[in-house]
Amino acid sequence: MAKKKIEIYDTTLRDGNQGEGVNMSIADKLDITKELDAVGVDYVEGGWPGSNPKDDEYFQKVQDLELSHVKVSAFGSTHRADSEPAEDFFLQKLVAAKADITCIFGKTWDLHVEQALRIAPERNLEMIQNSIAFLKEATGKPVFYDAEHFFDGFKSDSGYAIATVQAAVDGGVSRVILCDTNGGVMPHELAHAIRELRKEVPAVKLGIHVHNDGGLAVANTLRAIEEGAIQVHGTINGIGERCGNVDLTSILANLELKMGYECLPEGQIRGLTNLSRKIWEFLGMQGPNGQPFVGPSAFAHKGGVHVSAVQRNPETYEHIDPELVGNSRKILISELAGGSNLKAKLSNRYPELEDSNAVRAILNEVQDREHAGYSYENADGSFDLVVRRHIGKYRPIFEPIYYRIYSPSNEEHPDSAGLIEASAKIKVGENIELCAAEGNGPVDALNRALQRALIEWFPVVGDLHLSDYSVRVVNSTEETAAKVRVYLEHTFQGEAFGTVGVNVDIIQASWNALVEAYQYALMQHQEFVDELEETKGDAGSSDTRQSAP
Amino acid sequence: MAKKKIEIYDTTLRDGNQGEGVNMSIADKLDITKELDAVGVDYVEGGWPGSNPKDDEYFQKVQDLELSHVKVSAFGSTHRADSEPAEDFFLQKLVAAKADITCIFGKTWDLHVEQALRIAPERNLEMIQNSIAFLKEATGKPVFYDAEHFFDGFKSDSGYAIATVQAAVDGGVSRVILCDTNGGVMPHELAHAIRELRKEVPAVKLGIHVHNDGGLAVANTLRAIEEGAIQVHGTINGIGERCGNVDLTSILANLELKMGYECLPEGQIRGLTNLSRKIWEFLGMQGPNGQPFVGPSAFAHKGGVHVSAVQRNPETYEHIDPELVGNSRKILISELAGGSNLKAKLSNRYPELEDSNAVRAILNEVQDREHAGYSYENADGSFDLVVRRHIGKYRPIFEPIYYRIYSPSNEEHPDSAGLIEASAKIKVGENIELCAAEGNGPVDALNRALQRALIEWFPVVGDLHLSDYSVRVVNSTEETAAKVRVYLEHTFQGEAFGTVGVNVDIIQASWNALVEAYQYALMQHQEFVDELEETKGDAGSSDTRQSAP
Repeated sequence: MAKKKIEIYDTTLRDGNQGEGVNMSIADKLDITKELDAVGVDYVEGGWPGSNPKDDEYFQKVQDLELSHVKVSAFGSTHRADSEPAEDFFLQKLVAAKADITCIFGKTWDLHVEQALRIAPERNLEMIQNSIAFLKEATGKPVFYDAEHFFDGFKSDSGYAIATVQAAVDGGVSRVILCDTNGGVMPHELAHAIRELRKEVPAVKLGIHVHNDGGLAVANTLRAIEEGAIQVHGTINGIGERCGNVDLTSILANLELKMGYECLPEGQIRGLTNLSRKIWEFLGMQGPNGQPFVGPSAFAHKGGVHVSAVQRNPETYEHIDPELVGNSRKILISELAGGSNLKAKLSNRYPELEDSNAVRAILNEVQDREHAGYSYENADGSFDLVVRRHIGKYRPIFEPIYYRIYSPSNEEHPDSAGLIEASAKIKVGENIELCAAEGNGPVDALNRALQRALIEWFPVVGDLHLSDYSVRVVNSTEETAAKVRVYLEHTFQGEAFGTVGVNVDIIQASWNALVEAYQYALMQHQEFVDELEETKGDAGSSDTRQSAP
Repeated sequence: MAKKKIEIYDTTLRDGNQGEGVNMSIADKLDITKELDAVGVDYVEGGWPGSNPKDDEYFQKVQDLELSHVKVSAFGSTHRADSEPAEDFFLQKLVAAKADITCIFGKTWDLHVEQALRIAPERNLEMIQNSIAFLKEATGKPVFYDAEHFFDGFKSDSGYAIATVQAAVDGGVSRVILCDTNGGVMPHELAHAIRELRKEVPAVKLGIHVHNDGGLAVANTLRAIEEGAIQVHGTINGIGERCGNVDLTSILANLELKMGYECLPEGQIRGLTNLSRKIWEFLGMQGPNGQPFVGPSAFAHKGGVHVSAVQRNPETYEHIDPELVGNSRKILISELAGGSNLKAKLSNRYPELEDSNAVRAILNEVQDREHAGYSYENADGSFDLVVRRHIGKYRPIFEPIYYRIYSPSNEEHPDSAGLIEASAKIKVGENIELCAAEGNGPVDALNRALQRALIEWFPVVGDLHLSDYSVRVVNSTEETAAKVRVYLEHTFQGEAFGTVGVNVDIIQASWNALVEAYQYALMQHQEFVDELEETKGDAGSSDTRQSAP
């Protein structure tokens, strides 16, 4: 039996853009359109022509994109009460946008008709019907209708709410989208309203558009599908005004993997995690770790009981296979970890960890350091150094002596505008190296200086690239005396790894994390370690010889 | 008619602590216990005695707290298959914990009995019944039972799942908590399982404990209440393993404000936002802006249409009055803002904004600056300076000349360990001031130096306190050449306000935000502005005289 199709209508670019902290450029909007097309979303709502210059430009430029699947939708509203459709500025803009479809919203709720529009209820019905009929005729393309505040309107005056939907149908609409604009409807209220509406207007094809103000957006959307809606409006990652729109990533995964519907072209659901992360990146935002299905913690196991069970059978503590949505399992190391977490993570690399004394000592150190503000959950590089210290495999390839930062003011050195100077002094064997470099910001400058000091001895550090950088205040209750945790990500010969530094001083914390990154990368090369052992051996140092070959 | 009571059982300290990035000290756990008691939660699950030293210590120390309402619960599991209850290490620990109640989990799902415990199904039933009976006898206090994986177990073998609940009842349990441990159950499946269970074991008093892996935790919890559960297990802010537990803040608000249940003592629901933010603070984490009910964006309006309607009647775009949960409305300024947002925000302060040219120019500048990485949504101080520039009221009280940072290495200056030195040079009128200061980190040092340079001229800056500091990488695609946005919060004479700085260099960005904070604070004092006008007037400067009195 063929699966039933649910249409996916994405409004990330329009309703999503109303979220606090969201700010998309035209280039972002066009790039996101391409991503949505690639994954196989049915409709993308690009903006509201006439409302701001950016949105007008979007509809011009989107015509030059080669889109294979998605239809572009232009958003607007019913015509103004004091004009007729053909003379209405925004309806004209909608026609001029030349989108594949148009979607306009109108008023369902008597409160809004009276207090926001301040017109007679009948005039509102005319405006709905006439706007839709005009757009259908003028564009020659399908028109969708967003019944704004449908559920609040239904609660206040169900007869009038239903009459507005009937007006849209009479205007020749293709889909009527029931909106929980304020985001406060409860699932049972929503189901009741849809059932009553379908009794009165059986011919209507319904969509659902909800917000998450009650924490119920996903449930409400799925409930509407159960009640017969065939189209879902939402945003990737649930961005949007106030608490956001429904998160389409949760909807797609639930509909396809739990409820047996078809939403995206075959196999595309595996691109879901990738899509989610790309959109966060475009927005310059970091998603919640625990975002269902696609978050970095969505399949992260920390408690020892869970980890040992998942090792035997993932189904014991995972509701789906993470690979179905392109996500992956993560074993976390923390004070709650049992030895099983540690062994699961490291048994290939360090078989000697079967020695349980070392495992206990490592867990204790992790516990102490987490107490001091460190976090090893993403810092595999720093964690590796902790492990090495406990199993006698820690061989620092160089010794940091000091660093300095100099930030020239623009007035004094206009030609260095925006550049920071750093110097790094280190010891390699018996040799002292001091190098200086300029960079964009202190971390970049320190990284360049340290690389320069090491590259003569270890040309391989030329392959070490700083790829991400984040800072978090660890304890914000003590004003700026609070410590910061700096997390650095480097790529080295195809592998990405993280290191972490914690200090009251952000520069010192960054320096510590940088030093660990270089130590970690160099220790991957056994030849450097061997060479070091040899030199030390010659010099008669005994404390590191115990595990020399 | 009295409202029906729902019991609130908080497991922030136990299940919440299994969330990625969550790491609570004993002091945190005790402080959180006090907060939960103050707001009137019924039960707080403090930890698992015997599983780690921190949890044992918690149960000792919690006995010294003066708690007025909350009952403390100790968590554990059924006894081991190879021992009997009285000899079981963890059951003994539970008794020794001397908590007000105990709550143990056991296996419901045949898969777990076979693959995790590797015992006969009948032995598992004995272990459930006997563990509960032992604890009830040994502690003399109520015992709760967490039916782990109840819904997965029911789907796999409903008869066996029901038999495990019957075993708990036979053991003398007070509540059986149905757990969606893997977080993947759908609301209709959950309702069906609860109905079937209640047919077979009508005497059981039920609780509900769900995880958010499908994005349905809130809906599933409310559905279980509709099906007769009388107790909710969850965590404040929804922290917890993988995608987290159900967020009790959403549950409390929905149950009390939407569904008419009683959960907290009269009036305490108004403390919800405060509770949520305190817990984020204890965790050193920042909650999602759009967290339902309690998030900083939960009642933030950005779109111009919404703002102008909310000004007339908040019900038009708010599902509840934000004050009911102690939250507040927020009007955002962005490129999507119409003039109505700006006027709503500033009409009291600057009545001259009715001049619409200035409004348009301000919105344009905000748009340009947001494009460059700024964000004014929380930076009222910096935004005020933008507005002042456009309406001829920008009167910088001092002129920054340069700053320097020196970070001594520990080796050279062991007595300055961890301290950073900053110097700040500024011009006040015709006078040059250069001051240096040490601080914990560069921002603290710069703040002290700037304050020292200004305080002789403006003693009032002694009241300006730096209260928060955050950093965000604005564009992380270009390695560390990316800009950072620094956000500072100061309190000044009882008011908190934010300023923002953006630069490739974090120190420069911080300096810019600091300078704006001092300018903003000083400009609040008209006498400084007047004095400045006078001096400038004397010096014959014409361009600032236009709006001098």
